[in-house]
Amino acid sequence: MKNKAITSRDEDFAKWYTYVVRAARLADYSNVKGCIVFEPNGYAIWEKMQSILDKKFKQLGHQNVYMPVLIPESLLKKEGELIEGFAPEGAWVTQGGNKTLEERMMIRPTSETLFSDYYASKVSSYRDLPLLYNQWANVMRWEKETRPFLRTREFLWQEGHTIHETAAEAEAETLQMLNVYKDFFENVLAIPVITGKKTEKEKFAGAEYTCTVEALMYNGVSLQSATSHYFGQKFSKAYGIQFLNRENKLENVYQTSWGCTTRMIGGLIMVHSDDNGLVLPPRIAPRQVAIVPIGTDETVMTLADEYNKKLLDADITSFVDKTERSPGFKFAEHEVNGIPVRIEIGMRDLAENMITLARRDTREKIRISKDCDIVAEVQKLMDEIQNNLFNCAKKRAEEKTYTAFNMAEVEKIMNTQPGFVKAMWCGDEACELKMKEIRGTKSRCILENEAPIADKCVCCGKEAKHLVVWGIQY
Amino acid sequence: MKNKAITSRDEDFAKWYTYVVRAARLADYSNVKGCIVFEPNGYAIWEKMQSILDKKFKQLGHQNVYMPVLIPESLLKKEGELIEGFAPEGAWVTQGGNKTLEERMMIRPTSETLFSDYYASKVSSYRDLPLLYNQWANVMRWEKETRPFLRTREFLWQEGHTIHETAAEAEAETLQMLNVYKDFFENVLAIPVITGKKTEKEKFAGAEYTCTVEALMYNGVSLQSATSHYFGQKFSKAYGIQFLNRENKLENVYQTSWGCTTRMIGGLIMVHSDDNGLVLPPRIAPRQVAIVPIGTDETVMTLADEYNKKLLDADITSFVDKTERSPGFKFAEHEVNGIPVRIEIGMRDLAENMITLARRDTREKIRISKDCDIVAEVQKLMDEIQNNLFNCAKKRAEEKTYTAFNMAEVEKIMNTQPGFVKAMWCGDEACELKMKEIRGTKSRCILENEAPIADKCVCCGKEAKHLVVWGIQY
Repeated sequence: MKNKAITSRDEDFAKWYTYVVRAARLADYSNVKGCIVFEPNGYAIWEKMQSILDKKFKQLGHQNVYMPVLIPESLLKKEGELIEGFAPEGAWVTQGGNKTLEERMMIRPTSETLFSDYYASKVSSYRDLPLLYNQWANVMRWEKETRPFLRTREFLWQEGHTIHETAAEAEAETLQMLNVYKDFFENVLAIPVITGKKTEKEKFAGAEYTCTVEALMYNGVSLQSATSHYFGQKFSKAYGIQFLNRENKLENVYQTSWGCTTRMIGGLIMVHSDDNGLVLPPRIAPRQVAIVPIGTDETVMTLADEYNKKLLDADITSFVDKTERSPGFKFAEHEVNGIPVRIEIGMRDLAENMITLARRDTREKIRISKDCDIVAEVQKLMDEIQNNLFNCAKKRAEEKTYTAFNMAEVEKIMNTQPGFVKAMWCGDEACELKMKEIRGTKSRCILENEAPIADKCVCCGKEAKHLVVWGIQY
Repeated sequence: MKNKAITSRDEDFAKWYTYVVRAARLADYSNVKGCIVFEPNGYAIWEKMQSILDKKFKQLGHQNVYMPVLIPESLLKKEGELIEGFAPEGAWVTQGGNKTLEERMMIRPTSETLFSDYYASKVSSYRDLPLLYNQWANVMRWEKETRPFLRTREFLWQEGHTIHETAAEAEAETLQMLNVYKDFFENVLAIPVITGKKTEKEKFAGAEYTCTVEALMYNGVSLQSATSHYFGQKFSKAYGIQFLNRENKLENVYQTSWGCTTRMIGGLIMVHSDDNGLVLPPRIAPRQVAIVPIGTDETVMTLADEYNKKLLDADITSFVDKTERSPGFKFAEHEVNGIPVRIEIGMRDLAENMITLARRDTREKIRISKDCDIVAEVQKLMDEIQNNLFNCAKKRAEEKTYTAFNMAEVEKIMNTQPGFVKAMWCGDEACELKMKEIRGTKSRCILENEAPIADKCVCCGKEAKHLVVWGIQY
């Protein structure tokens, strides 16, 4: 097993990315253009993401439902901005059961329309509110250029859709879910993020406003990683979701939606992985510990099994690699697969009453007594790895976060050492379009809680309204 | 809250079924023809089914993957029988991103084609085998007549797809998974089942043979509840899945697939529920215990919270209903929703140091000391309910399982008191078609392990080859 990527991430990031996806067997290309096969190692990461987020959503009172995968065109058209936004990316079913359909149907690109249509039939009084629903589903957007996990025609996601009695409640929900994502990225995925509102140009079609979670990849490119939308009454007016309020008057509900996708797996790769393959923070790694016996002595095997049992009992996902391959081959494989901790047990170490722990992030080896409290040692090491990965990513993001006061500065940064650029903006879309000419630089989000760094717009020099983070995007 | 169905299950079973689905808020009709909305109470049952089965699949060495939702027509056509079987039910995508596609694609009705195509690129040696993959996914079949859970254009399911080095191994897998389903139905869903092979006419398109799990509903109608297929080398030849065997010769792999669907929720309803709404076996109930405080006295509320904590700590899904509605309303609601155990706590009972447990299956009330070991009492009661539901269903199925020796007998049974009819069959499809004229009676499966009950075919009177179970089907 050879680990080293043909190209290092510093030389050709795109090529290196593909190497990691394939070498760690996360996904494969399929014969369905623009769609990938989620292989066991990749799908297991998604399952772990789902289980952690799903638990959190439910703790906050959300319930899971499932809506149809097809949306009739007429239903889509009720809210004008949404259909306008998604029509160019639609996959349309026009034939069913050997007949041409009277009305074509789009494979859901997102499900605001179906949820709104459903809610309209369910709500009559303020007593019925809020309704806090979520669904885990596949969605489809007919992208032209695709890349595994980051942009594929079909992807997997969750979409929360909630309706509320008041605007204040719905806005609080929008913010709450944004913070759920932020917390998940920072504390589980070990990815530091910036959060804020999107500009009018970049917001979700049909939303009053969109909040976003933005992360910086190893190569300085930005990744929109999760979004939380406040719809106000836009959909509830278009779809007639009305209720009798406390004054006994008919009112339209206030609505939100929020989602995150399998794109997060791409983010994990691009933030933490290295030239030896995948690196996973322990809290999201489907398999946290690989125990590799060196040789087949009974003492070795017994100790391996004993450790394994103790770790599994402590809810640490561990396994003993008893396959018939050399220890070196196994080390390399578990490394490329990003298993955070490896325990090596061999007679030479045991003669000195020792075993070896190897950490994937730094590739450091640590010899400790075989009589240690293995659960405590592994837990401590996993915490260190988790913290180290977050701190490295944070340090890098900080180093790649710049300020700019004119277009020449923006241009210089984006062309040489791209990253997050903080710069003032007047609020005009024309200036966003100008910025886009620089390697596709887009506003990531508005920083509402940070003090302005200048008076003038970085682009036109007119009076600035907002401090904005800009970046080249995936 | 009024519970009683407008029509009892003995009067109008179909109407009663719809009543339960709607009253227990399991699903709602959607504005997408033939598709339903899985509402929280219904989806939660599916989630529990998934978690139990998924754990079992993984214990047996299966891994989850995810394949694309669309299948190009050319890929579908490689195996002739499959496309012939599914083409009439296909939902076809013909337009993507505002363009007419060069080749139309079917929304997956099942994924043998995609798995086979993928496997062909993954396997080269016997050392790569077996591959034991499963996926949880939505599928679509353009049905004409639909009914919630039982037959809908889109449904949710799992499909296991495995490839093996030898026919014996693949056949063992087919049987193993059939038994996993049988065990799940009997020990979790409390539904007794018959298992066996389908006839040639009724087997899955493209399979060498199909094993099936068949259950009898309250009204004597049969439900095909899960299937496990042995493909032999049919797909591996069509898709070129070859490996170098131990003799270093190229050979085609031996393949299986097996699946179960959201239809099982329909089965649960039709076997256990009654005129008061949904009845769920405790092992599949998403919410097992509802604690209803009568009045708002602090003593009552404290005890309710105390019980709730103890039950939750013991992994029993319990909740205290603190909503502002009358106890009677709450009783009725929890009953219609099929919550297996209700704990009623009120001052009158407490004055005598007592509380009341109500079981959903028999609607019996049991007074016990408030100082009891509540976890042990509830667990004991849940076990009783689980066993009682299975035994009732088993007794009913036995009462509705008949033998027949000529067509007049079959006709009489199916027209008056339908159920499973055991009868001998010559093996000719012509006789199956004759049987179908009697209210659509179809062969459910061949009973290979039971002794023949006669020499002659029930239909044509020629020499009989198999003992077959027949039934009217959903």
